[in-house]
Amino acid sequence: MGLNEFLEDLHSIDRQRLHLERCVALLQWDQETYLPEKGVDERAEQLAILEGISHERLASPETGRLLSELGSTAEDPTGNEKLPSLERDFLKTFRKKYDRAVRLPARFVSEAARAEGLSQAAWVRARQDNDFSAFLPHLVKMIDFSRQKAMYWGYKDNPYDGLLDIYESGMGEKEVSAVFTPLGEKLKELLKKITSRSRPDNSFLEAEFDIENQACFNRDLLTRLGFDTCRGRMDLSAHPFTTTLGSNDVRITTRYLKRQVQSGIFSTIHEAGHAFYDMGFPEELRGSCLADGASMGIHESQSRLWENVIGRSRPFWEAMFPALRTYFPVALSSHTAEDFYQAINLVEPSLIRIEADEVTYSLHIVLRFELEKELFSGVLDPANLPAAWRGMMKKFLGMEPETDAQGVLQDVHWSMGSFGYFPSYALGNLYSLQFWEKLKSDIPMADEQIRAGNFSSIHAWLKDTIYIWGHRQDPRDLLMTVTGKSLSSEPFLDYVESKYAGNFS
Amino acid sequence: MGLNEFLEDLHSIDRQRLHLERCVALLQWDQETYLPEKGVDERAEQLAILEGISHERLASPETGRLLSELGSTAEDPTGNEKLPSLERDFLKTFRKKYDRAVRLPARFVSEAARAEGLSQAAWVRARQDNDFSAFLPHLVKMIDFSRQKAMYWGYKDNPYDGLLDIYESGMGEKEVSAVFTPLGEKLKELLKKITSRSRPDNSFLEAEFDIENQACFNRDLLTRLGFDTCRGRMDLSAHPFTTTLGSNDVRITTRYLKRQVQSGIFSTIHEAGHAFYDMGFPEELRGSCLADGASMGIHESQSRLWENVIGRSRPFWEAMFPALRTYFPVALSSHTAEDFYQAINLVEPSLIRIEADEVTYSLHIVLRFELEKELFSGVLDPANLPAAWRGMMKKFLGMEPETDAQGVLQDVHWSMGSFGYFPSYALGNLYSLQFWEKLKSDIPMADEQIRAGNFSSIHAWLKDTIYIWGHRQDPRDLLMTVTGKSLSSEPFLDYVESKYAGNFS
Repeated sequence: MGLNEFLEDLHSIDRQRLHLERCVALLQWDQETYLPEKGVDERAEQLAILEGISHERLASPETGRLLSELGSTAEDPTGNEKLPSLERDFLKTFRKKYDRAVRLPARFVSEAARAEGLSQAAWVRARQDNDFSAFLPHLVKMIDFSRQKAMYWGYKDNPYDGLLDIYESGMGEKEVSAVFTPLGEKLKELLKKITSRSRPDNSFLEAEFDIENQACFNRDLLTRLGFDTCRGRMDLSAHPFTTTLGSNDVRITTRYLKRQVQSGIFSTIHEAGHAFYDMGFPEELRGSCLADGASMGIHESQSRLWENVIGRSRPFWEAMFPALRTYFPVALSSHTAEDFYQAINLVEPSLIRIEADEVTYSLHIVLRFELEKELFSGVLDPANLPAAWRGMMKKFLGMEPETDAQGVLQDVHWSMGSFGYFPSYALGNLYSLQFWEKLKSDIPMADEQIRAGNFSSIHAWLKDTIYIWGHRQDPRDLLMTVTGKSLSSEPFLDYVESKYAGNFS
Repeated sequence: MGLNEFLEDLHSIDRQRLHLERCVALLQWDQETYLPEKGVDERAEQLAILEGISHERLASPETGRLLSELGSTAEDPTGNEKLPSLERDFLKTFRKKYDRAVRLPARFVSEAARAEGLSQAAWVRARQDNDFSAFLPHLVKMIDFSRQKAMYWGYKDNPYDGLLDIYESGMGEKEVSAVFTPLGEKLKELLKKITSRSRPDNSFLEAEFDIENQACFNRDLLTRLGFDTCRGRMDLSAHPFTTTLGSNDVRITTRYLKRQVQSGIFSTIHEAGHAFYDMGFPEELRGSCLADGASMGIHESQSRLWENVIGRSRPFWEAMFPALRTYFPVALSSHTAEDFYQAINLVEPSLIRIEADEVTYSLHIVLRFELEKELFSGVLDPANLPAAWRGMMKKFLGMEPETDAQGVLQDVHWSMGSFGYFPSYALGNLYSLQFWEKLKSDIPMADEQIRAGNFSSIHAWLKDTIYIWGHRQDPRDLLMTVTGKSLSSEPFLDYVESKYAGNFS
């Protein structure tokens, strides 16, 4: 057998694994949208079986043999130099998945999965009861399992680097700190400036907005954004998400709140941004591990670009507000696109991350990043986390939660052992503006096109410039390829400063 | 290892296989309800992968080893005599699945699957173009593959017995003929009597019935029938069906036609009947191959019992008509429950099986059974099937189709190689009345309860008497266990005669 045959066999394993993961994704999608209440237990069993088979396929001795026949090793994953660059990128990405899968002992995986299940359930109760101490032993365990995971997988300088690497391949604590620390300081200053000004009136958004009409408007909006319903769909779920069940089957969910019409709208746009990315990988990558986003943060940059940079812009609502008003003539008759624009862009410190605006959102993330660093360096005892949380809130947002439920217990991530995940959100914000800066220089008329409700050249640019790479490049390389620059918070800071403090600068 | 350990391992294989089949069922359900148009090709790949894995699990050498350790052979499948009867029933049923799976060579399975795909596509085109000759070569292949399948599996007297056995285990051609031949004659006579009378007016059912209101009424109806939406759900699809994704996740679909309100209603009731069966297996059978209907025909008896015997009865519409009228006050204001009862029970010969009434339906089946027998005995050349079809239509229904599209090409079954399937439908009709006769003798007040919209003792009876057996017994044994009698068309004939020709007898 020659290289081509080995490659073909490896692609076939990858394709099977991918399809099995998509079956898993369908089971999960169904669980969040349509599964009857009492079907949950058996669904969990079905998921465990499929995930087990998918893992078996990936981590089989046959996979290892093919990788080594192709010259791919853990140290030098890209394999034989005779292979074309696309295949070497494939080997690099696939090898990483393989190494991740085989390095964790089966016993560890099942113990960790069990502990995560218990921890998440304990977190739900602890948040309800506002009882951090009940969650603490689970949190300690999750930190320990995460540290062990990092050990098994290997890391650059410290275990937290190994965790960051799961979500942002190639990004370490030092690199993120170098950007996040000044970002935090500058956003704090900006926030002070903004809150010293008069607050725009957003009370009209608290009127009653009929759910049926919200659903109709959001469907219209999705179509006008350019979402192809022959290749995807939108449903309802408690927590909006995007999932890929096939190259031509990318699904998003949203949710409607009667007294917060903007909640559904921005969920829809955010998830559509994720979906455009997953729908846009080039034909040649489909059915392989390269048909994926470059990282969590790059994926988030796509959702945020649509949700915030485009979706919270003045031109966007000049285009969309008339349609919104036809669905809600009573609530909106005496309001203009400009009123709506001001109202949806209200900036003020708040306790809850997922309700935060564009300026304070990244502060919530920097805070979590600081705490994660301290937890993993051992400086911070998990038992002292609530106090440390309040201190950080005071420092970054100038306010403190009255309860742990509104503080350290608000997010699910740590209860699942997902340490290192939070930074991706703020990195997504930064990436999105680095990309947008480049897009604007390539498409100087972008704002005018948005004002005309025309997104076709933006879609084409994203597809040809970002989506085209799929998972072939790490976020750092992709950033360099697309923008010619490395990670920087400057474009993001310029954007929020000119948008929110224009009068002061 | 002792018997108990072997048994435990075999149950674990069975449970995995069952869960994988339910994953397959979810993928198929999604394909019929929510899958975006362009997702179909990749879905087919995903289905093939899961079906392959499910087959691997079932037909593994490990399965064979465990079966033989437990004393189960093809000739004596129930295994070691020391085992409790439940486990021996399990072995019998599981062994049959295993034998079916291992006796077909892998190459034959994939060739047959490919040919079926092509045949079904050819049938769709042939029906559109009314061109039987274009379908003929595929039909010939399907007959040949079915005959080979019967050879691999083995059969009693002739290959057609082997095909009948797939759907009605233990039922052979002779046994079915002995019942169907006189049934056909008697129904023909009855039909003559009925059509000589004046035809009830059902034109008011052709008014416009708003789809949204139909959806609301059908949801109400489903709840009033006793369908537990914590353990199942109802969606829309082009062709209504029931599918089981878990003991607590049984899903039905229905469809609404604007000018045929009864179509959606009887689809809903029919599928609910199937669902009640699948929801009602006892705890001890769940997660095993015994948590299944006794046969296709027994399953059909449950859907028909609800759709026809209960759902097309006078007491039922005395209970439900007032609600229906509140949803459609304009179309139904001048009509009574009795008008509706008469209209939905119109009997007249027609060309299309799925549109047939209670009396002519079984004639459509007897006709197909006669043709299948002739095709497999070699008496009928497939090329002469259209002429034979017209002859049979003339004989049984006194009318002939003008086109093959409305004749021999109307059903999908033969194009998929599903010979031997049709008889199950008419057997379902017969079984349902045999069961109903027994139910009425155990619950003399059944009609009064239906009139009060109270189905609880009917549900309890079905559960304790029929569902409780799951797949433990073959249809013949189940019939004997439940009714003390063997297969008979008498209760069915008594029922249709008294319902439709009461005035004549």
